[in-house]
Amino acid sequence: MRTRAAVALEAGKPLEVMEVNLDGPKEGEVLVEIKATGICHTDEFTLSGADPEGLFPAILGHEGAGVVLEVGPGVTSLKPGDHVIPLYTPECRECEYCLHPKTNLCQSIRTTQGKGVMPDGTSRFSMLDGTPILHYMGCSTFSNHTVLPEIALAKVNPAAPFDKICYIGCGVTTGIGAVINTAKVEIGSRAIVFGLGGIGLNVIQGLRMAGADQIVGVDINSDKIPMAKHFGMTDFVNPSEVSGDLVAHLVDLTGGGADYTFDATGNVQVMRAALESAHKGWGESIIIGVAPAGAEISTRPFQLVTGRSWRGTAFGGARGRTDVPKIVDWYMEGKIEIDPMITHILSLDDINKGFDLMHAGESIRSVVVY
Amino acid sequence: MRTRAAVALEAGKPLEVMEVNLDGPKEGEVLVEIKATGICHTDEFTLSGADPEGLFPAILGHEGAGVVLEVGPGVTSLKPGDHVIPLYTPECRECEYCLHPKTNLCQSIRTTQGKGVMPDGTSRFSMLDGTPILHYMGCSTFSNHTVLPEIALAKVNPAAPFDKICYIGCGVTTGIGAVINTAKVEIGSRAIVFGLGGIGLNVIQGLRMAGADQIVGVDINSDKIPMAKHFGMTDFVNPSEVSGDLVAHLVDLTGGGADYTFDATGNVQVMRAALESAHKGWGESIIIGVAPAGAEISTRPFQLVTGRSWRGTAFGGARGRTDVPKIVDWYMEGKIEIDPMITHILSLDDINKGFDLMHAGESIRSVVVY
Repeated sequence: MRTRAAVALEAGKPLEVMEVNLDGPKEGEVLVEIKATGICHTDEFTLSGADPEGLFPAILGHEGAGVVLEVGPGVTSLKPGDHVIPLYTPECRECEYCLHPKTNLCQSIRTTQGKGVMPDGTSRFSMLDGTPILHYMGCSTFSNHTVLPEIALAKVNPAAPFDKICYIGCGVTTGIGAVINTAKVEIGSRAIVFGLGGIGLNVIQGLRMAGADQIVGVDINSDKIPMAKHFGMTDFVNPSEVSGDLVAHLVDLTGGGADYTFDATGNVQVMRAALESAHKGWGESIIIGVAPAGAEISTRPFQLVTGRSWRGTAFGGARGRTDVPKIVDWYMEGKIEIDPMITHILSLDDINKGFDLMHAGESIRSVVVY
Repeated sequence: MRTRAAVALEAGKPLEVMEVNLDGPKEGEVLVEIKATGICHTDEFTLSGADPEGLFPAILGHEGAGVVLEVGPGVTSLKPGDHVIPLYTPECRECEYCLHPKTNLCQSIRTTQGKGVMPDGTSRFSMLDGTPILHYMGCSTFSNHTVLPEIALAKVNPAAPFDKICYIGCGVTTGIGAVINTAKVEIGSRAIVFGLGGIGLNVIQGLRMAGADQIVGVDINSDKIPMAKHFGMTDFVNPSEVSGDLVAHLVDLTGGGADYTFDATGNVQVMRAALESAHKGWGESIIIGVAPAGAEISTRPFQLVTGRSWRGTAFGGARGRTDVPKIVDWYMEGKIEIDPMITHILSLDDINKGFDLMHAGESIRSVVVY
């Protein structure tokens, strides 16, 4: 079949919207009509050329929602008409990782996914002249139609609006999951969130859900205060307005350091501050942000020996097929909010505007609706 | 009263054995006759002058065992004749730290302990000319008699031999506790232990107790193989004999990385190797060793984002009054071994030989018996 997609032809260039060929689903695969997709910093990271593993030409996008149109042979858990969210971290429920209680990093299709192809080693996408186009993070939601492995699709509540729940495909789950799955924050905890972008806001609402008593937001842009307060921030710190040491200020503000700190900036200096503002004895610091290639974190080992833990999270520690449907339900039940974070709705033809808005810091999340 | 002690008059000089004055126990304090004391690297660290917090003159030693001679007013949990192990990490059972489920770092007397004095701000030790001598880590076990707060004494099985269980006052508990309290190693785990000195050997026997399937020892000295095997090591790696990357070698040897890795070297480069040889998704790396002042650990944050955790432990995460008596019982029941690790028994007059043996790498543990 043919479909319309925004294609990343090469690094550093805008996406080009064009008709492309899409082969039907093979064994264990599913054809999905994407109804909406968010534009995430990870797409930007790859498109910019900064991602050392970026491959071109490719159809980017990994934060979508849509409807199953057709299933390939052997697919048993999905049928046409099911509403689904693509999962860049799949959940096969059979690999060593899926069977381990401490991780969500299913490895069953990792190698082929990293190469931009389906598990059989080939791409379903091609130019009209036959040139193959690669998949991206196993999702390629910047195409109106895409093919994914069955294990990379979460079946969700069909009443949920696509233009909101697409955000659960990455940002919402990453932020909330970091709190609930990775940190396992307890009621009454004190927490600090570094970076009040889309991920940071979701960390904040995750903390509110988890019953945190104090939720300190840290950002160099004070314009972010109203939205962060809306989602549950109790205290704000702008590092550029702190006289003296930021860590000492945060330790004082949290009565000795926070029980949990979260980096949602990707800046390795901030990651260090996040660790060191965690409470002696038991504070845990969770890295969510993706650092530039080659950047390193560092600290004195004394910070760890005196009881702080340094950890990280990918996709919020969520097992996609199991956890994403629950998060969609939380949204439908009003336990979490998404609507205020979707600041811009675009058509596919305007997808490059979404990247411009991101660069300008004007959007929390831009969503393309097909 | 007067007692005999090995006094650290200044940094970088041998200890001087001399008669000193010891005041009796004040409110909440206990006079203990030390029967045996180990000589630990931490004593050496301070004596050498490398410890930026080291104070002189002081009576070092923090790994002892002895008998209660007299209790001060208000002491209720101990009486003369009780056998005790001094605790450099006390357990008041009342402070914010003792009441927190995730830490053992009781802070109730930390400030005064760090200054080398008892909780009332004064020292019980003095030269015969009246010059005060400071306490060390709240213990000062290099004195035949010493005074400690009640909360810094673990009451132990009176049948246990002092010259063995003194080692439980630091090294044994630190190593075994890192496995049991901090890492909480599960049956069937794979583990790597970096550094096969006294701490490393105790980590190994802790892993054996915990039911680890694979226990890899890493040391640049292959002479340590027999003893490490005796305590449970299943595989040995000498980094100087590995062609190529040590981490890749260890990841391969452990089938993808270890579930738990332990640094017992204090070398920050080794700490990094320990983290990076932990298994993707769930591997935890525990820092036990004390690094040189100012040294920093570093890694790419990707190591944490893909599921590894970096943690540390002090006194093996043990709550001394609660856990140390249990470890003494384990020794008496044959669940753990200590005897082969006590390689040298010395008199107090020969205490400086113990430091020489440590420098020469000839001892695992030297113990002074009074």
